[in-house]
Amino acid sequence: MNILIKNCNLISMAENREKYEPNIDIYIKDKKITKIGKNINPENDTKIINAENKVCLPGFINTHAHLSMSIFRETLDGYTLQEWLTDKIWPMEDKLTREDIYYASLLSCIEMISTGTTCANDQYFMAEDTIKAANKFGIRLQVTRTVNDVGGLGEQRIQELEELIKQYNNLYENITLNIGIHGLYTTGLDTVKKLIDMAKKYNLPIHMHFCENTKETQDIKSAYNVESPVQVLQEYFTETHNILAHAVKLSDEEIDQLSKLDVSIAHCPVSNLRLGCGVAKIQKMLDKGINVTLGTDGQGSGSSLDMFDTMKFAGLLQKGIFENSKNMNSYEILKMATINGAKALRLDKKIGTIEEGKDADIIILDLETETCKPTGNIYSDIVYNAKGNNVLTTIINGKVVMENREIQGINKQEIYEKCSKIIERIQK
Amino acid sequence: MNILIKNCNLISMAENREKYEPNIDIYIKDKKITKIGKNINPENDTKIINAENKVCLPGFINTHAHLSMSIFRETLDGYTLQEWLTDKIWPMEDKLTREDIYYASLLSCIEMISTGTTCANDQYFMAEDTIKAANKFGIRLQVTRTVNDVGGLGEQRIQELEELIKQYNNLYENITLNIGIHGLYTTGLDTVKKLIDMAKKYNLPIHMHFCENTKETQDIKSAYNVESPVQVLQEYFTETHNILAHAVKLSDEEIDQLSKLDVSIAHCPVSNLRLGCGVAKIQKMLDKGINVTLGTDGQGSGSSLDMFDTMKFAGLLQKGIFENSKNMNSYEILKMATINGAKALRLDKKIGTIEEGKDADIIILDLETETCKPTGNIYSDIVYNAKGNNVLTTIINGKVVMENREIQGINKQEIYEKCSKIIERIQK
Repeated sequence: MNILIKNCNLISMAENREKYEPNIDIYIKDKKITKIGKNINPENDTKIINAENKVCLPGFINTHAHLSMSIFRETLDGYTLQEWLTDKIWPMEDKLTREDIYYASLLSCIEMISTGTTCANDQYFMAEDTIKAANKFGIRLQVTRTVNDVGGLGEQRIQELEELIKQYNNLYENITLNIGIHGLYTTGLDTVKKLIDMAKKYNLPIHMHFCENTKETQDIKSAYNVESPVQVLQEYFTETHNILAHAVKLSDEEIDQLSKLDVSIAHCPVSNLRLGCGVAKIQKMLDKGINVTLGTDGQGSGSSLDMFDTMKFAGLLQKGIFENSKNMNSYEILKMATINGAKALRLDKKIGTIEEGKDADIIILDLETETCKPTGNIYSDIVYNAKGNNVLTTIINGKVVMENREIQGINKQEIYEKCSKIIERIQK
Repeated sequence: MNILIKNCNLISMAENREKYEPNIDIYIKDKKITKIGKNINPENDTKIINAENKVCLPGFINTHAHLSMSIFRETLDGYTLQEWLTDKIWPMEDKLTREDIYYASLLSCIEMISTGTTCANDQYFMAEDTIKAANKFGIRLQVTRTVNDVGGLGEQRIQELEELIKQYNNLYENITLNIGIHGLYTTGLDTVKKLIDMAKKYNLPIHMHFCENTKETQDIKSAYNVESPVQVLQEYFTETHNILAHAVKLSDEEIDQLSKLDVSIAHCPVSNLRLGCGVAKIQKMLDKGINVTLGTDGQGSGSSLDMFDTMKFAGLLQKGIFENSKNMNSYEILKMATINGAKALRLDKKIGTIEEGKDADIIILDLETETCKPTGNIYSDIVYNAKGNNVLTTIINGKVVMENREIQGINKQEIYEKCSKIIERIQK
């Protein structure tokens, strides 16, 4: 079925239409945006969505998530990162079954759809079950099997990743793969080199945690015997596209060096604060022309997958911590949450903007609510005042997955109960 | 009419019931909480509210707001604080009429009720019209007429404030007054001394901006010829209870000195970031036993009056900026948003907790939503995952002002349009 969105206020995020456009129709045919304009006439078999006084925006792209970690939400308070991992997360992860991963991922999919995210970059294990959950809704996913050398299992993990790639690369149109390197502090050079080769062989991006906190940064320096973790990238990561999650602990000089490599940053401000890591120098990265994108991290540290929260924190931290209220223009933040994310995942030819020819990943926002009025600046209103529940309708790959806040074909309460039972069981 | 809240999960915030209590009834009679327990039988003429699986919490107390500034929402991006005030806010404020103040305050009241705030500490001018708006809903307000010496009008402002006190002190049960000093950088010692005398004469707290940013702190030092702004407090503010908004730029030694005075801090993390001021050392203040409370500031800098956002920022900033994930226990943050606020306003005998004998300012939350499940820690879930729209029902002074998200007796759209027209007119 085709879709005609009538009379929306369009924020396309496309380079050639960087202005808010009132009263626009968007026509979606065979999953693609085929026409954007005024007074479009629908063909037969077209679902009409009245979007008068509503805002259409490309769906958000969350570039660093662990969808299966929804069940660990709010287990962190009172712990340091290391205590939390050692005493709570790792023992619980050992007990996770494939069914657990499926239900935990389903909860994350519900959360994303409800808060306007249409695509996520996931890094965890048992990826098949996360893919199964994503396919339940048709949510767009870039996914991997994270590899590290913990327990001497690097070689086995590499094989698991390659199996995953062979099985799922190009199998589903909404699922793409990348090469998951857990981090340089947990993964030795031999394994890293093999993964870089794999990235080149299959022409896939690399997705890696990088310089999240002081300890990690020091550990990389010791493990690789370098002055700076960036040196490792300069030496080995020169022919791959690299998505670096966090990048908190970098000097101005290191940021300058990074800007000369093919990297995208997945900025996860909420998780970085929650874990006591600090604040990445995002304005500096933007000034250097680095492609900065936004991620939530897993709910264990990021609390939720709500990209509105992430945008708000991203904007306010750069203003407040670096004491310059002019930092972080709101439109720039919307780019980070949409088209920049698509570029990071190398999906910018398909998604990230509302443009003719692109796949239809579109969210419809209602900003006629008490915390958004009056609208002094539409972009700032979305970044600072809108919340997940301002998303009325979510369309992914031309399919309406949520309409007027109702998600079709799922019993939310059942998923909540399943997930509550999982955490109860594995906490024992 | 009496109210019986049935089967709620109670977070009372009272000192003697610091534990989450499931399946509790709360009985409200003549505006007061008269009974808390199991299986309470209602008298005649009792409205029953089924709160099964819902959470009851004391209404939030916002200790630093400018309710009339709702119309300035999202006018700030791209400006420094000084440019914004000089080029935008002050010229617009000159054009505000009393009717404008009324409608702008009404919008703020709607915003507060919708997001669970039942009491606010307001500082602006034309306070009568803000009081009128608060009375429309029966929202609880501590209010003042802000005094400074700008334009040589200190004496006149003092008189206006005293008029306001004479007229409104003890007139309405939901309206209390305090002494508004704009700030030491705008108000000379003569005026300050008169205001301190007025605070003592009427036995009212003082509400003052204090050390919001580096420039203000420097200006106070010059104006008062002191090494530290705290010295002014140590010398003159010793017999009054002082609510200090912001307190961002303080050294550890100054925090120690503050802890020996009768002060409460109104921490406004969102506004402090937005204006490029920095982050107050809240964990340090708590460690020193200072009464820390939460404020949103006006929407011009604070974006919204949503105390959930404020709690989340308050918690995460202290963990992230000071690089200690153990900082800021979630229950402590809830105290800051409730009972600590009541203490700051000297209303803690009446509000701030759900206890027998207190006035009934209660909010009912639905946490059975996609970003809150599963519930790893109920307090953290409220601080980090709940949003304004998780508030189902708001009760102020024993009156249901919002039920199942419906506010009685108001056409929201009409208020939004009025406010949009005000900002359009005064922007010209």
